[in-house]
Amino acid sequence: MTLTERDARRLFAAATVARLATVTEAGRPHLVPVTFAVDGDRIYIAVDAKPKTTRDLQRLRNIRANPQVAVLADRYDDDWSALWWVRADGHAVILDGARQTAGPVALLTGRYPQYRDLPPPGPVIEITAERWTGWAASPPGNGAAPRLA
Amino acid sequence: MTLTERDARRLFAAATVARLATVTEAGRPHLVPVTFAVDGDRIYIAVDAKPKTTRDLQRLRNIRANPQVAVLADRYDDDWSALWWVRADGHAVILDGARQTAGPVALLTGRYPQYRDLPPPGPVIEITAERWTGWAASPPGNGAAPRLA
Repeated sequence: MTLTERDARRLFAAATVARLATVTEAGRPHLVPVTFAVDGDRIYIAVDAKPKTTRDLQRLRNIRANPQVAVLADRYDDDWSALWWVRADGHAVILDGARQTAGPVALLTGRYPQYRDLPPPGPVIEITAERWTGWAASPPGNGAAPRLA
Repeated sequence: MTLTERDARRLFAAATVARLATVTEAGRPHLVPVTFAVDGDRIYIAVDAKPKTTRDLQRLRNIRANPQVAVLADRYDDDWSALWWVRADGHAVILDGARQTAGPVALLTGRYPQYRDLPPPGPVIEITAERWTGWAASPPGNGAAPRLA
């Protein structure tokens, strides 16, 4: 069943992991798992502190050239009546510098205790969701399903 | 740590869910969760039997216009030492008709008992992976981690 925008956003916002799709200048999709925090129609994604190779910054180069992005959260379960997914389609900007990133980093650190000792240094990807699309095998709020991933 | 191609493919092949990214003709990324089966460097993705709206076929329209795709499997855990992800980058073709889809559908039905009563009718997306890229927080084969999603 198709989810209402409200249910879709609620399920997405409570998930712990999502996947970010961007597009390279050559028109190839690029896909990475991400931690994130949601504030209304804004999604914030940290670039982690661990050492990055050039490839890891592909997502940032892609966004600078083409700000269109998609972000997906989903729940898999062997019981297919518990499946759901939510996708946010929107556009991204890159926030850099403490003044821009302090608020988003606080949201991320609030969601992920793992960041408390080593907050993500930035930059932060800020996505404005233009559309929330979602599907669930069972009605949301129905006790057991959809469960969170 | 970066995974070897062999470890990356092995982890990916054993996962139960992945996410397929394609690109629309307008250059926007499109992202959906998928069931799949791996045979060497081929990844097979079913289009389920449940009623589809036009939007659900977006992935097929995208592939017809631009065969470049990315597929991601990942493991999230509150224990970040158990995290891993693997991405296959490649190109896709659409298989249709029982003669083309019988083999892939048998692979999919073998992996997912849920398909045994109602095998996916096709079409099937066949992806040839040109590159397997993977990362894990802990060395694979290290007992507990990386664990499967």
